[in-house]
Amino acid sequence: MISSLSNPKVKQVVQWKNSAGKRRDGNIFLAEGFKMWEEAPEESLREIYATPEALEKIGRHPLWREKLKRTKWETVTEEVFRKMSDTQSPQGVLCVVERPVYRIEQLLEAKNPLLVVLEDLQDPGNLGTIVRTGEGAGITGIVMNDTTVDIYNPKTIRATMGSIYRVPFVRVEDLPGAVRRMREKGICVYAAHLAGETYYDSFSFRQGSAFLIGNEGRGLGRELANCADSLLKIPMEGHVESLNAAVSAALLMYEARRQRS
Amino acid sequence: MISSLSNPKVKQVVQWKNSAGKRRDGNIFLAEGFKMWEEAPEESLREIYATPEALEKIGRHPLWREKLKRTKWETVTEEVFRKMSDTQSPQGVLCVVERPVYRIEQLLEAKNPLLVVLEDLQDPGNLGTIVRTGEGAGITGIVMNDTTVDIYNPKTIRATMGSIYRVPFVRVEDLPGAVRRMREKGICVYAAHLAGETYYDSFSFRQGSAFLIGNEGRGLGRELANCADSLLKIPMEGHVESLNAAVSAALLMYEARRQRS
Repeated sequence: MISSLSNPKVKQVVQWKNSAGKRRDGNIFLAEGFKMWEEAPEESLREIYATPEALEKIGRHPLWREKLKRTKWETVTEEVFRKMSDTQSPQGVLCVVERPVYRIEQLLEAKNPLLVVLEDLQDPGNLGTIVRTGEGAGITGIVMNDTTVDIYNPKTIRATMGSIYRVPFVRVEDLPGAVRRMREKGICVYAAHLAGETYYDSFSFRQGSAFLIGNEGRGLGRELANCADSLLKIPMEGHVESLNAAVSAALLMYEARRQRS
Repeated sequence: MISSLSNPKVKQVVQWKNSAGKRRDGNIFLAEGFKMWEEAPEESLREIYATPEALEKIGRHPLWREKLKRTKWETVTEEVFRKMSDTQSPQGVLCVVERPVYRIEQLLEAKNPLLVVLEDLQDPGNLGTIVRTGEGAGITGIVMNDTTVDIYNPKTIRATMGSIYRVPFVRVEDLPGAVRRMREKGICVYAAHLAGETYYDSFSFRQGSAFLIGNEGRGLGRELANCADSLLKIPMEGHVESLNAAVSAALLMYEARRQRS
């Protein structure tokens, strides 16, 4: 059992927790809690840390017990775990997970693609919620630019509720270029935009479709909006000028799901 | 210009910032940023604090300048403002706003009501996003129990993006009782519930309707779910077990909006 805060493994995890750069160098991300551990692909689990209390809980679930046996883990004290954890009430299990590798070509060549394209999204919770809702709506992937918040931010990972393991995503330098490639593949590209004049539910998303979602404060940049086939509008009553980015994405993705089902 | 951190007004605002109880005792809430100031009903503005930089910005907008003239304000230094502010990059304007008073009767007797009922919602951002999306979808009010997160939490206020000034809401001790009163008024009550078997877009929400939304982790409690006329299901692909509470609410409210428009 690791009980020292100066144990090198503990120090490494704390570094990873605090630095997006170190996580990238390590090619890993951190996933906390029973659900995130349970749903992690076993081949991607590099390290697992658990408190005695969490291990006891795992031991009481037959399936969890079997899963734990198939991987290595380290027991750590409550105090050490609190140091490694990013949450205020830690569940006592934390995984170091190898990053998945997706290529843009995969996303472009999916059957009947339904893509979400994110420009400069800044809120980690919003990004995680889009991944989670996206899986629920059946999207085939997410493309984002490299000034979008780190998808491996612990808050984002937590907000995905496990969908991070299953929704393909790529980060690209040239988002307008990626959008042009989508259009070359016959994917119809829609920008959620305040200047849109046609309500989102008047379009058909049955064919390959992509939704462009912009930054929380500024919305979509002009260059990217100009790459779209159509601007679409989400109707808003009252004095509302825009919706939360994750809410806008949810409405579009679920409208596509509704039409496709 | 207030430049001292020990100025009694500054100390009072800091107290309000840090304590839900003190805000309640004062019958006020705090609203930060230009948008929140601009949209605040003038008769509810009790105090305004602004930095010289913010005042300069206000001075450059003719409408803002006029609005400022109609109310009293205090200039505070950047340092004092940072102390009063709840945000990391403050915009330099903060209002003390008197709380609105709504009664449950008003909400029950609205014409063709579209209500959202929240049980034990815990995330301030989710609550604020529901208020904002709710205004956009044209809901007529929100009813929540007293174990739901404080709607006057600064994070909630911020997430409403001004909708807090316009969407009526009430906090009740007895949420099942409130739901029974809705049904007596002929409002059809739908529970978003994992046990629901009928998709949400198969129901008609054209008549008076209310949506019950439960806690982020646990969902709706059994007692409240039993008060509903129908359980409804939001379809989910993949391994998604539930959606974020604000996303679920958004999908339901916008489906109602779509049917009613």
